[in-house]
Amino acid sequence: MATFFYYSLAAGIIAVLFAVLTAYTTLKKPTGNEKMRGIAQAIKEGATAYLNRQMKTILIFGIILSIIFYFFLGNGASIVIAFIVGAVASYLTAYLGMNVAVRSNIRTAQAATKGLDSAFRTALFGGSVTGFAAVGFGLIGLSALLMLFTTSQLQLLIGFGFGASLVSLFARVGGGIYTKAADVGADLVGKTELNLPEDDPRNPAVIADNVGDNVGDCAGMAADVFESYAVTLVAALLIAFAFVKTDASYAYPIIVASIGVVASIVSMYFMKVKNGNVTRALYIGIGGALVLAAILDYGATIYTGASMTYYIPVLAGLIIAFALFAITDYYTGNNAKSVIKVATAAKGGAGTDVILGLAVGLRSTWVPLLLVVAGILVSYAEAGVYGIGIAAVGMLSLTATILTIDSFGPITDNAGGIAEMSGLPHSVRKITDKLDAIGNMTKATTKGFAIGGAALSAIALFVAFAQAVNLTTLNILNPLVVVGIFIGALLPFVFSSFLMESVGYAANLMVEEVRRQVRTIKGLLQGKAKPDYAKVVDIATVTALKSLIIPELIAIVTPIAVGLVLGRSALGGLLVGMIPASFMLALFMANSGAAMDNAKKYVEEGNFGGKGSDAHKAAVVGDTVGDPLKDTAGPSLNSMIKVVSTISILLAPVFIVYAAM
Amino acid sequence: MATFFYYSLAAGIIAVLFAVLTAYTTLKKPTGNEKMRGIAQAIKEGATAYLNRQMKTILIFGIILSIIFYFFLGNGASIVIAFIVGAVASYLTAYLGMNVAVRSNIRTAQAATKGLDSAFRTALFGGSVTGFAAVGFGLIGLSALLMLFTTSQLQLLIGFGFGASLVSLFARVGGGIYTKAADVGADLVGKTELNLPEDDPRNPAVIADNVGDNVGDCAGMAADVFESYAVTLVAALLIAFAFVKTDASYAYPIIVASIGVVASIVSMYFMKVKNGNVTRALYIGIGGALVLAAILDYGATIYTGASMTYYIPVLAGLIIAFALFAITDYYTGNNAKSVIKVATAAKGGAGTDVILGLAVGLRSTWVPLLLVVAGILVSYAEAGVYGIGIAAVGMLSLTATILTIDSFGPITDNAGGIAEMSGLPHSVRKITDKLDAIGNMTKATTKGFAIGGAALSAIALFVAFAQAVNLTTLNILNPLVVVGIFIGALLPFVFSSFLMESVGYAANLMVEEVRRQVRTIKGLLQGKAKPDYAKVVDIATVTALKSLIIPELIAIVTPIAVGLVLGRSALGGLLVGMIPASFMLALFMANSGAAMDNAKKYVEEGNFGGKGSDAHKAAVVGDTVGDPLKDTAGPSLNSMIKVVSTISILLAPVFIVYAAM
Repeated sequence: MATFFYYSLAAGIIAVLFAVLTAYTTLKKPTGNEKMRGIAQAIKEGATAYLNRQMKTILIFGIILSIIFYFFLGNGASIVIAFIVGAVASYLTAYLGMNVAVRSNIRTAQAATKGLDSAFRTALFGGSVTGFAAVGFGLIGLSALLMLFTTSQLQLLIGFGFGASLVSLFARVGGGIYTKAADVGADLVGKTELNLPEDDPRNPAVIADNVGDNVGDCAGMAADVFESYAVTLVAALLIAFAFVKTDASYAYPIIVASIGVVASIVSMYFMKVKNGNVTRALYIGIGGALVLAAILDYGATIYTGASMTYYIPVLAGLIIAFALFAITDYYTGNNAKSVIKVATAAKGGAGTDVILGLAVGLRSTWVPLLLVVAGILVSYAEAGVYGIGIAAVGMLSLTATILTIDSFGPITDNAGGIAEMSGLPHSVRKITDKLDAIGNMTKATTKGFAIGGAALSAIALFVAFAQAVNLTTLNILNPLVVVGIFIGALLPFVFSSFLMESVGYAANLMVEEVRRQVRTIKGLLQGKAKPDYAKVVDIATVTALKSLIIPELIAIVTPIAVGLVLGRSALGGLLVGMIPASFMLALFMANSGAAMDNAKKYVEEGNFGGKGSDAHKAAVVGDTVGDPLKDTAGPSLNSMIKVVSTISILLAPVFIVYAAM
Repeated sequence: MATFFYYSLAAGIIAVLFAVLTAYTTLKKPTGNEKMRGIAQAIKEGATAYLNRQMKTILIFGIILSIIFYFFLGNGASIVIAFIVGAVASYLTAYLGMNVAVRSNIRTAQAATKGLDSAFRTALFGGSVTGFAAVGFGLIGLSALLMLFTTSQLQLLIGFGFGASLVSLFARVGGGIYTKAADVGADLVGKTELNLPEDDPRNPAVIADNVGDNVGDCAGMAADVFESYAVTLVAALLIAFAFVKTDASYAYPIIVASIGVVASIVSMYFMKVKNGNVTRALYIGIGGALVLAAILDYGATIYTGASMTYYIPVLAGLIIAFALFAITDYYTGNNAKSVIKVATAAKGGAGTDVILGLAVGLRSTWVPLLLVVAGILVSYAEAGVYGIGIAAVGMLSLTATILTIDSFGPITDNAGGIAEMSGLPHSVRKITDKLDAIGNMTKATTKGFAIGGAALSAIALFVAFAQAVNLTTLNILNPLVVVGIFIGALLPFVFSSFLMESVGYAANLMVEEVRRQVRTIKGLLQGKAKPDYAKVVDIATVTALKSLIIPELIAIVTPIAVGLVLGRSALGGLLVGMIPASFMLALFMANSGAAMDNAKKYVEEGNFGGKGSDAHKAAVVGDTVGDPLKDTAGPSLNSMIKVVSTISILLAPVFIVYAAM
């Protein structure tokens, strides 16, 4: 193995340095008045407490799995080390990113007193810590392992991928349940029963709601995309090792990922708000990163003498990344045609609003799917299965930029909350409201990227799996394979049913607690007494952590059981059945939710009677239904498919020896 | 080829005779008073008008396709004849069945004046006309073709299957959109805005709603199950021809189907209501049919000297049929644990009601899927791929009983409507209400059977497809196959999005028309002036027929395009990707809807505040959302997967010659 990992080590260090530097400058910014600090402090404490408790649960799972891997995989400590490095890198990303995010919210609110661009840049650079920490820790962790292992040990890297997957599954599922239980709970009593506006400090669930934005949208998303990033690089290296075996084929994905870091840093400085147009600034940022990466990748291909057939798949991946962003915006963005359809249906009541919302989500699946399919065909035609691996790397090389724009969402959402709760002047809230609306858009569009990234990396992992279990054909006319495909298609449905149920259940607990506080704390609604925020935060924390056990076990145990009982072919079928079904379901859920969310906002802008009208009430119901679809069940499927894929590869040696069929 | 088709011809004639006899005795029953006859007449006219108009649309498609088949398939007129026989047999079933159903409703209402058992048996035997017409016409049509064709022409039978599929697709999609547009439209204005009870004659949409029950739940379901029945028999024969090639292997599925007719007829007389327990009577009917069929099949296996390895798959199929019925009841029946969960969530509002409803639907998929999977494994272990074919035949041999119990649903629903509209005494309405509730249960549970039947028959068709296009392996490691699988998983999502949207759109048109009539017809709400029912019926008819064009084209054109552009392997992948995704999505949709429907009923029974409470309003929203899920989008997927499968086999010769890859 050549010394190509120096590239990734250098790029990783640059990314981390950039993250640290940005964190430093962000934290130096002013924090506003006493009241704002009090609120921000409560959000920070709740979020940190959640991540700490979640870590304990992960530790238990992690230790048990480490012991199993050590004794059953026959690779000694190496695979366990890889596993731990992956898990720690992922958790560090989520931890560092969220810690800066929960400090950036108040600074964004304060910066909003100076104007839109100032607030925008505070939120954006605050969010960039998550983005660059993810790629930085990912590249450093991977490089460290590459230094440690010999070429023949390359397959041990899957331990790194699985470490990232495990953390991601917890962060996505737990964070997703937390954020939506709090959001739905806060809305149900606050808005519907008590007629309080969003983020009103008299609502006992309001802090929990803001905490949820951070643990779900920020930490959860960071772990999810980190995982896609890590497993995609691992899959590309495994495929290179299995099918190409040249130094160039090892180096190329690493170079593309490293170039992504450079392009992402430069593009940070493209994003400036002109004439109040924030969306344009973001599009320029992503577009700029894409074009820059494409040019640099081209140059690197020429310079290193790598084959042009490698470049085309990478370019396809980059284009898919951008297209997924734009398509989600097309279906679910403010004033999108589909969104107006849903809003119009709200005139007929909550029922038709939800019917149309679900219809939009179902429809929205086709362009992303055909894009991914086209990407696969082009990449394969150019460079065989290796092409599919590097297309995924190309797509995910923009991870830092996309995660930055995503983390921008919860920061601006929180900033709006802090501005509202601390009673900042109307002009400030107008700015935070505007940023919040854009943040909602970026949270939705980056989800399209995360889902697509998960699908593409899962396909690359599937190729790696087939290699790991020595399958050169996987014949669908073999009933075991068909059975596997069926079980694979079942997985996302059952998995997400638990998440939906948990949100409904936890939201009800929140509702009861809020009602109790309103009943027992005198002067609460008059603003004379403070609600017991911590109690609600605690309920959300405990319920989210309890609810994630069963879905976690389903994701981990199913592939092991199928692999052991029905054998490798069935497990291969399972992966192939699971990927498209999960991809479709995740897109359907995420986009249905986003469309119903924005339909509500469309009505709130004054259409069809505006706030307080019947259409608005109907649209609020649609938003509530959409919440767990778009922020809990949908995105958690990303983590599920990667955990199932990585554990299947990780345990390949076991399946080869012990499978019953 | 031996003369085994005499069995099926005889069984078919027996079934048709039974249907005609039952129709005759049912029609001889008294029809009640003038007012009742007026209402029943309006329903009958609306339903018949719809089927007639629908036929014109089908004719256009059918003629175009016949011409294409004649010129491109190189089999001359034979394949076109098979196609026409299949289509005509399917339409005859729907037509005859529905014609008796729309005459049984009024007779059931009248019989209710004499008591529960009398009303029950009138509805049951009225519904049995559909059930026995389906199997009768199916067996006669098939036998006629078997007499016409030589063994080497056996593959032409797929034309018969595709004829049934085409009609089914129209009847399911068009009927499904019609029934739910009318239902949702009637509820939205009637119940929510005007506070009218269900089936109030002052509601202008009330006749359209009752017509919808017939064209959707009766004619649509009949065509769907007829199609599963027909294609399953065809697939079993094709598999026998491809893999076994013995006379016994051709005869066995025919014998099993014929025995099913006998068992179904006998079981009709098991169903008697004792102590007012209607559910028990139905369970005894299905259970009786199952046990009887199992015994007779066993005897026939011994008697004909067929292999016991054939019997086991058939038995597995029979057990799956019964289990699917029972599982659906477990998840969505009255007072089911899951239903109470949804109803409890309604206390938190419409949002949590729908969230839990969707969760129940997602969860409900796992037992049916594992059942089908177990059935595949057992059948394959016993008799190879032929085992899978005859397992499907075993399952569908109970078609007559299941369809009878299904058609019972719309008849009792209509009977309740007629009793309400014509102001029959409270005691009568209590009986029709009870039967209506049971009818809702049977409509839901038979859906589980229809979905499972569609999945199993599609799997059998997939095996036949692989044979027809000369594929002995279909390697998932080939990217074309993966691409096909992805496109297959996409199909049900996009297809159902159009149906959901159409229902939302058509319901809105109905709402506007009803509002217009309330505004312009003086004395309407006081019961002094009659609404213009026909106008609403007309809107539902026209919109349903317009809305079905795009989904039909998607289902027909996609497999052709994939087969021609990406080739046979990709098309094989498409089938394999489509079946589980559609199966899961259909179960999710059907059971979510049924659970939300019954949660509403649970609240209406007086729980959580009963009718008029906030929980009830929330549950009504859930019911509205569930309506198009369970009666339009979900069941239409059955027809979609079979049309895609049959057309893929039908055009196999074209794909072999012309495919680009």
